[in-house]
Amino acid sequence: MKLRQEGEQLSKRVFGVDIGGTTVKLGLFDEEGTLRASWEIPTRTEDNGSNILPDIAAAVRAKMKEEQLGDQDVVGVGLGAPGPFGDDGTIYNAVNLGWGEFNVQQEMERLVGLKVRVGNDANVAALGEYWKGAGVGASEMLMVTLGTGVGGGIIHDGQIYNGSRGAGGEIGHIHLRDDEPEVCGCGCHGCFEQYASATGAVRVAKRMLEAEPEEPCVLRGRDFVCKDIFDAAKEGDPFAKKIAARYGEYLGKGLAISAAVLNPSMIVIGGGVSKAGLMLIELLLPAFDRYSFPGSRNVSFGLAKLGNDAGIYGAARMLLS
Amino acid sequence: MKLRQEGEQLSKRVFGVDIGGTTVKLGLFDEEGTLRASWEIPTRTEDNGSNILPDIAAAVRAKMKEEQLGDQDVVGVGLGAPGPFGDDGTIYNAVNLGWGEFNVQQEMERLVGLKVRVGNDANVAALGEYWKGAGVGASEMLMVTLGTGVGGGIIHDGQIYNGSRGAGGEIGHIHLRDDEPEVCGCGCHGCFEQYASATGAVRVAKRMLEAEPEEPCVLRGRDFVCKDIFDAAKEGDPFAKKIAARYGEYLGKGLAISAAVLNPSMIVIGGGVSKAGLMLIELLLPAFDRYSFPGSRNVSFGLAKLGNDAGIYGAARMLLS
Repeated sequence: MKLRQEGEQLSKRVFGVDIGGTTVKLGLFDEEGTLRASWEIPTRTEDNGSNILPDIAAAVRAKMKEEQLGDQDVVGVGLGAPGPFGDDGTIYNAVNLGWGEFNVQQEMERLVGLKVRVGNDANVAALGEYWKGAGVGASEMLMVTLGTGVGGGIIHDGQIYNGSRGAGGEIGHIHLRDDEPEVCGCGCHGCFEQYASATGAVRVAKRMLEAEPEEPCVLRGRDFVCKDIFDAAKEGDPFAKKIAARYGEYLGKGLAISAAVLNPSMIVIGGGVSKAGLMLIELLLPAFDRYSFPGSRNVSFGLAKLGNDAGIYGAARMLLS
Repeated sequence: MKLRQEGEQLSKRVFGVDIGGTTVKLGLFDEEGTLRASWEIPTRTEDNGSNILPDIAAAVRAKMKEEQLGDQDVVGVGLGAPGPFGDDGTIYNAVNLGWGEFNVQQEMERLVGLKVRVGNDANVAALGEYWKGAGVGASEMLMVTLGTGVGGGIIHDGQIYNGSRGAGGEIGHIHLRDDEPEVCGCGCHGCFEQYASATGAVRVAKRMLEAEPEEPCVLRGRDFVCKDIFDAAKEGDPFAKKIAARYGEYLGKGLAISAAVLNPSMIVIGGGVSKAGLMLIELLLPAFDRYSFPGSRNVSFGLAKLGNDAGIYGAARMLLS
C-alpha cells in the first residue's frame, strides 16, 4: 500500500500517438508535457487497416513494460488520425488508412485497456502547438497547415473545436475565387488550398510565368517546387518576389476570412511551406490587413515550433485537459 | 425557515434584457424558459449612455417588487448589448449607446445587486434561437442576421463562441469580392454584408437593373426596398426572380465559407430579410452546395422563430447554462 501511494505522487505518464499514412509516431510524455521518449512503427494499411490499432496497442504495452509502468501510472493514450471525428470518438472515414466508419475510441480502449481520447490529426497538431509550441498563451488560436493541401485546426478555450461532424477548421476549403478552371481535391473550384498549399504556390507561379513570358526569372524553363519559389525570392529574383507576393496575398486573404469568423488572438502557421520562415508572415500581412474586419485584425502570427512532433504533443494533451 | 424552503422549490426567475439603440427590451422568465412578462423602456443615450444601466436596474427592481420576488428567487440578469465583449464582461465600445470601454458585468452587478451575465446582442440572439427557437437540438449552430448589416452568432457546445475580443461570428465581414468599388461600414471593400444585407440586396438589384436597361421589371424606375424585391419575385416578375437568385447566390456563398470554417449542423436565418420566408433557403441552397466543403455540406437551414424576442431569451439563457 505504501509503495502504491508513493507511485501515485510521481508524475503519471501519457502516450501521444499520431497515425500517418505510412508511419505511426508515438510519444511518451509526463503530465507536465515533457517528451520522455518517441519512436515510430510502420502503418500497416493492408486489410482495411485492421492491424493499425492492434499494432499501436502492442507498442504502448511494450513501452509500459520496458519503463516498468503499471496501468495506474498511465493517464491514457491520445490518438490523432487523418479523418473527421465525431465527439463520441467515431471516425467517419480515413481513406489513407483504409478505414470506414467506426468508433476508434471504444475500439482502442478495448485493445489497450487504458483511457483513450481521439481526434483529427490537423486539430490535434493545433492542440500540440497551443500546449507546447507557438500558441502558448493564446486565448483563441487558429493553426493553418500549409502542405500538399491546406489544413486548419481551431483551439477554443484550450480545447479542440471539432464542428458538428469533425470538419471544424477546414479552412483550406474556403471559397476564394469564382474563375478557377481546375478542380480541387474536394470537388469544388476555387478553394483556398488551390492557391495557398505548396502545390497551390507552384500553380500560382506557373500561371504568372505563362502570363508574362517576357519576364526573366530563375524559375523559368525548369521544374520547380514550392521551396524553390521562396528561395529564389530570398535571393532577390524580381519575378520570384512578385510570385511570392501574390502567394502572400492569397494566404492573407484566406486567413482574413477565417479571422472574421473566428476572431482568434493568434494564428500559427505550420506545414512544409512554413519552412520559408518569417518571410511568409511579412508576405501575408498586407492582404490580411486589407481584407480583415477591424475588430478581428489584432492577431499575432507565429510559425509552428514543434514540426512533426505537434501531433504527438496534442494527442497526449487531450488526456490532460 | 419552512417558508424559505418552500420558496426554493419553486422555479426561480431570470431576467433577460436586450439593449437596443432606442429601446431596452426586458423579459422575466422562469428557469424552464417560459416568458412570464416582457416590457420595454427607452434607451437614454444622452450623457454617454450613463443612465442606461441604472434605468435597467431600477426596472428590474420594480418588477421584483411587483412580483413579490426576493433576491433568493432570482437567478440573475442577462444583458445583451450592441458591441464586442471580452470574456470578463468588458465591452470594448458601443457607439450606438454612447459607451466607451468598461466592465458592464461588474457595473450592472453593483447597480442591481444580482448575478449578471453579458454578451454581444447578435451572439445573445443566436443563443436565444438555440434555446427556444429554430436551433433547438442543434449540436453546433450558426445564426446569421440579415438586416441593415449582416450579423452572426456562433453557438458551440450550447454556449456563445465569443472570439478573443468579442468579434467571433462577424461573418458579415467575410471578404467576398475583389472588385467592389463601394466601401463597407467597416472600411473594407467587398464584404459579405455589402451583398447579403437588406441594403446589399437593394444594391445588387440596382446594379442589375442598370446593367440590363432593356429588361422589363416592376422595380424599375421607382424607389424600392429589400422586401419589394422578394415580393416582386414571388409575384412572378422574371427579372425580380433573377435578382433574388443572384442575392441567394451571394448568401449561399458566404454561408458556405462560414460552414467550411465552423462545420455547423444548423444555420438559422434571422433579421428583416428573413421575412421573405422559406424562399430564401431555396434561393441560397444551389450556391451553398456548389461552394461548400463536402464534409461541411450536411447543414439544416431554418428561419428564426423568436423575432425581436430572441435577445431577451438568449440573455436569460446565459444565467442558466
